Amino acid sequence: MKLLDLYAKMKSDLDVLEGKLAQSVTSDHSLLSETSTHLLKAGGKRIRPIFVLLSGKFGDYRLDTLEKIAVSLELIHMSSLVHDDVIDNAETRRGQLTVKSKWDNRIAMYTGDYIFAKALITVTELKNPLIHQILSKAMVQMCIGEMEQIRDFFNTGQSVREYLLRIRRKTALLIAVSCQLGAIASGAEWSVANKLYRFGYNFGMAFQIRDDLLDLLGTEKQIGKPPGSDIRQGNITLPVLLALRETGREQLLSELAEIRQSDGAGDTRKALNIIRKSAGIRTSEGLANRYIAKAIHALAELPDIPAKKNLTDITHFASKRNY
Amino acid sequence: MKLLDLYAKMKSDLDVLEGKLAQSVTSDHSLLSETSTHLLKAGGKRIRPIFVLLSGKFGDYRLDTLEKIAVSLELIHMSSLVHDDVIDNAETRRGQLTVKSKWDNRIAMYTGDYIFAKALITVTELKNPLIHQILSKAMVQMCIGEMEQIRDFFNTGQSVREYLLRIRRKTALLIAVSCQLGAIASGAEWSVANKLYRFGYNFGMAFQIRDDLLDLLGTEKQIGKPPGSDIRQGNITLPVLLALRETGREQLLSELAEIRQSDGAGDTRKALNIIRKSAGIRTSEGLANRYIAKAIHALAELPDIPAKKNLTDITHFASKRNY
Repeated sequence: MKLLDLYAKMKSDLDVLEGKLAQSVTSDHSLLSETSTHLLKAGGKRIRPIFVLLSGKFGDYRLDTLEKIAVSLELIHMSSLVHDDVIDNAETRRGQLTVKSKWDNRIAMYTGDYIFAKALITVTELKNPLIHQILSKAMVQMCIGEMEQIRDFFNTGQSVREYLLRIRRKTALLIAVSCQLGAIASGAEWSVANKLYRFGYNFGMAFQIRDDLLDLLGTEKQIGKPPGSDIRQGNITLPVLLALRETGREQLLSELAEIRQSDGAGDTRKALNIIRKSAGIRTSEGLANRYIAKAIHALAELPDIPAKKNLTDITHFASKRNY
Repeated sequence: MKLLDLYAKMKSDLDVLEGKLAQSVTSDHSLLSETSTHLLKAGGKRIRPIFVLLSGKFGDYRLDTLEKIAVSLELIHMSSLVHDDVIDNAETRRGQLTVKSKWDNRIAMYTGDYIFAKALITVTELKNPLIHQILSKAMVQMCIGEMEQIRDFFNTGQSVREYLLRIRRKTALLIAVSCQLGAIASGAEWSVANKLYRFGYNFGMAFQIRDDLLDLLGTEKQIGKPPGSDIRQGNITLPVLLALRETGREQLLSELAEIRQSDGAGDTRKALNIIRKSAGIRTSEGLANRYIAKAIHALAELPDIPAKKNLTDITHFASKRNY
């Protein structure tokens, strides 16, 4: 099945979700409703909600329960994006003006806080303490991941291990938890929930490495923001770390130092060229593929239901070159 | 009983709380532990934890349950303070450098997110969905209150009603919820929890009005930051709104316009003088006292236990002029 067919098949459930998402951020406060709706309308792949729903198929699938988890996970994700845009000083995301750019940093900060609080309201409707615990622990890890990203801005001496730990916290855990909670909320067996967690975790790692590659190799149209945004803001990703181990190291270091000094206004073309030509690209793709293989492996042990095939298809699709 | 005697009497429980607070923000991430501990050490009146504990006396007082609520409420309060300092561009709070000033805005934002997530972890240990629901709804209201404060910066046309609604969301609800949750967590009767909520709400309204008065009338030593900080950042509080109804209106308006144009560097002395001489001070004190009376009235209907006397004493102490 192609990915578009899958989306088409899930359309009615996803439409319900979109409605719930829109409804959940609407309040009696017009500016907060406006900023949040602006974010929602910018779209997104809704990968976390989709994983919640598909994971729910391994138990007693009930949309009214699963939608609350799906909505809260997407809201948590959105809330972290708004705060990221403040940190990254990002003007656009998904081709749309960011909240911090259309309004300002202060409004973006409280919009993030608000969407996060709305996510909590949604999930507390479930009255399942285990879900709250898993979610709040993932939140703490996400915050640590974000903070590590700030600490490691322009840190060219960081190790690959540090990079992997960071994207684990920043991205992979929330995707893992999406799968795990979908399973738990639908009463799937504990071992099934664990396998889905492992699937989500490995998918998330691959997903972030590919996202980091896309930022270096894609076009502005594909990325929704100018390529090289990561290095412009000092976010040293895997391909850059690997390129720094090669012969062009000194030249790349001096380009990065120049970009750092220019305070966000630097020309990233030379640095991008060095990285694109380095073996860091292929090695990063190789590592992403290893995580993809692990994700597929985690799925293999699950019961053979159509959702398993759907998750496999999504994973294969995500492993294709999109740059 | 004097307030100091009360603190002395509660000392062992409060010491446990301080230890738990310190423990809860410690993580394997050194910078986050450092920023959070810096905040904790700056102190504070711990009014929310004290209200949780005293409210817990109306039911089956169990410190191990109550401390989780107390810690999470204080963390939520602290988390909102860090984000406020970013918005207010505040250099000091309680006489200490703020996180945004000692580190930077980005670190302050994620420190706030992190402390908030830690608050959630603490409260999810209780496994009581009702508590989570009450808390997350209060969070949303707090965010709306903060956002309204930004929207109303330098809005000299706002009504007293708008001011009251804003401080209700920003301050009074969380104090009300502290009392309510202390009662609920200790299994107190529903009617008792409701009366304590009403007490906390009215106390919180008086508390914020007095805090706003203190910012206009206190010394830098008392406030822990320069007086007039509110008007410097455009936060139009009740005494200012009331002063704007008097004959000095035009002069005050032009002072405020000048402060606004100076972008945080303005001289607030003339504006402060006009406000201090206006009847806005006395009228605000009068309104604060009406909320104090309502708080005392809510207590009157509660069973006569020592904690009732303690809450009454704290309320009388809070109603004294401290400027």
